Amino acid sequence: MRKMEQRRIYLDNGATTQIRQEVLDAMMEYLADNYANPSGSYIMANAAKVALDETAERVAAAIGATRKEIYFTGSGTESINWAIKCCAEAKRAAGLGNHIITTAVEHHAVLHTCQYLEKNGFDVTYLPVDKFGMVTAADVATAITPKTILVTVMLANNEIGTVMPIAEIGDVLRGHENIAFHTDAVQGLGRVPIDVDKLGVDLLSITAHKLYGPKGVGALYVRRGTKLPSFIHGGGQERARRAGTENVAGIVGFGIAAQLAIAEMDAENARLSAMRDDFIAKILEKVSFSRLNGHPAYRLPGNINLIFEFIEGEGMLLLLDAQGIAASSGSACTSGTLDPSHVIMALGTPHEMAHGSLRLTLGRYNTQADLDKVLEVLPPIVERLRAMSPLWDDNKK
Amino acid sequence: MRKMEQRRIYLDNGATTQIRQEVLDAMMEYLADNYANPSGSYIMANAAKVALDETAERVAAAIGATRKEIYFTGSGTESINWAIKCCAEAKRAAGLGNHIITTAVEHHAVLHTCQYLEKNGFDVTYLPVDKFGMVTAADVATAITPKTILVTVMLANNEIGTVMPIAEIGDVLRGHENIAFHTDAVQGLGRVPIDVDKLGVDLLSITAHKLYGPKGVGALYVRRGTKLPSFIHGGGQERARRAGTENVAGIVGFGIAAQLAIAEMDAENARLSAMRDDFIAKILEKVSFSRLNGHPAYRLPGNINLIFEFIEGEGMLLLLDAQGIAASSGSACTSGTLDPSHVIMALGTPHEMAHGSLRLTLGRYNTQADLDKVLEVLPPIVERLRAMSPLWDDNKK
Repeated sequence: MRKMEQRRIYLDNGATTQIRQEVLDAMMEYLADNYANPSGSYIMANAAKVALDETAERVAAAIGATRKEIYFTGSGTESINWAIKCCAEAKRAAGLGNHIITTAVEHHAVLHTCQYLEKNGFDVTYLPVDKFGMVTAADVATAITPKTILVTVMLANNEIGTVMPIAEIGDVLRGHENIAFHTDAVQGLGRVPIDVDKLGVDLLSITAHKLYGPKGVGALYVRRGTKLPSFIHGGGQERARRAGTENVAGIVGFGIAAQLAIAEMDAENARLSAMRDDFIAKILEKVSFSRLNGHPAYRLPGNINLIFEFIEGEGMLLLLDAQGIAASSGSACTSGTLDPSHVIMALGTPHEMAHGSLRLTLGRYNTQADLDKVLEVLPPIVERLRAMSPLWDDNKK
Repeated sequence: MRKMEQRRIYLDNGATTQIRQEVLDAMMEYLADNYANPSGSYIMANAAKVALDETAERVAAAIGATRKEIYFTGSGTESINWAIKCCAEAKRAAGLGNHIITTAVEHHAVLHTCQYLEKNGFDVTYLPVDKFGMVTAADVATAITPKTILVTVMLANNEIGTVMPIAEIGDVLRGHENIAFHTDAVQGLGRVPIDVDKLGVDLLSITAHKLYGPKGVGALYVRRGTKLPSFIHGGGQERARRAGTENVAGIVGFGIAAQLAIAEMDAENARLSAMRDDFIAKILEKVSFSRLNGHPAYRLPGNINLIFEFIEGEGMLLLLDAQGIAASSGSACTSGTLDPSHVIMALGTPHEMAHGSLRLTLGRYNTQADLDKVLEVLPPIVERLRAMSPLWDDNKK
């Protein structure tokens, strides 16, 4: 008798994505054949070095930058740590101030880095957001003090998908030459058009594994002329600004992934946002006491984040997993904690309600059939969990 | 007519190594199939998490540690930066002192990190080495002051292969509970037996790509009870001590590479050191005005580092490359600079002589035929370069 294998429905593309075949093919050359250290003085090494240069071109082109403004790192988180810590410390050392502006809904890579800096004598303003998770350029303008040296605002939120008005904030900051502007574009790259000049950013953090590239490789864009000391000291790699033998295969994969994601972005965004909006409308209609987190319009094309009142997100994830559906209650990087999401809380959501959020993040391998399946199985899951919930009251049915 | 392809002879295994097939096979599962973020709440993610745990067991076993003492990073250089900077800063903040002891022949990942700390108020003693590149435990003991908080000495030198007396230094430091002991074991792992308890180290940095694993993944051993704040802040990965989505495929590859390297170490060391010693004896006999750098006995099994007087290393590398032989003049991480190696200089070598060093580092894919070929082509290369050299004097022939 043939075993029937359940089809796997992966709806956690905000956490990470499947490496696409073209990317893996490009990586294999450097995993299986040319293993040279690009710093070597021989033909093989030179070929690896050329591949790194070509990749920097590809990544630069994806964000409207030039090759020499791109530095490869080990992750988006490393890029963010480097940008924020080293920029802040250099500016303080130059006597320019010690005040940083960010938002309450940043990824922990930003928030925990800012908290680290607070312990080291920096002042940080965490701007509140509106009910959609949005800050405005005016909020940033109001928060600026004579000691402000750095503004760091995410391009798009990893949990609720809200896309921030980075270009408008960039416009506000153009008149402030002592203030550096960093954006965490980890979720944005390949999903939101990025042009570093239009955005007005000096520093921008990205990673490969959110756009069908490999895990373990990120990049930092550093605008020409921006003073940014090294974060990782050592050998002369990355023009002596980021030491450590280059992850050649991973970096090459990043370049191909970025190039393809940009080429396909418009079509893919149209496809995913149509699926997203259709699903949101249908699920909100099917399930009572449900609501959407995040902005209805300024939103990542594949992001769906819902609250189902009276139940816990974890229960939904377990029952969805039993049906072969991989989803998330928020950020993959905060799993294991029992606290509700700081992002959902920042929207003004009551504590007991914030536990019930469910994030479905669509990607290029998802089809309408995947969402149809979720539409079929999710309402009974919610019903079952509510039936077990002490908070669920018969009157609410 | 068939094109005859020249056989490639790779003798730069100190710079990086070819990924072995067993490692690549293990990685492919996480590159091509299970792409889950290990922090996810579903079956696929859990499988990735289990793979990370099993890898930590494998890496721990390779150095006599326990699983929870292993933290994965993006490179050996990141491990070194984390260990030195965060340990030093935590101890200074605790009022224990600000003095660091290291050696003049460390890799730049250590030296440049120490120089960074010097600019930030730390005092660093750079111990000189003897003509073989060795420090002694007595040298370390003499350098200790009441303000000493950290000793960092490499297990084996990347350029000249000298293996340092780490266990003896560890014995000296056992009585000093305020001093942490870090060793850069990047070159040592898989080539020198490592037991963290016998070595007496609190912190130990390693990487995968020097032992037939992938580039872009390192690890830091942190002895249980050692206070070490995070270097990269963000999500809760690596028990909240090193943030960033785990490079699952790379980490899994590291585990297999470490396990195999340890299993094969004794046999491989015997094979390589016999080839090494035979080559050294023959080349020193064949070429006048040549000498060995590094210790004749306490030496990495695959390391050959020679000086040929009156010529530049770069010329040798170019002519060897033309014969299909990949070699190095020292550290891959310092290529592009015109300065002679700080390691060769620290041995007391005159400046003009230090330019003529050649490093051949053997690995598991090298055969006796490779070294026979070098023995055949290298002496005429030296002769040719000397004939062109203004330093070469007919009397010396």
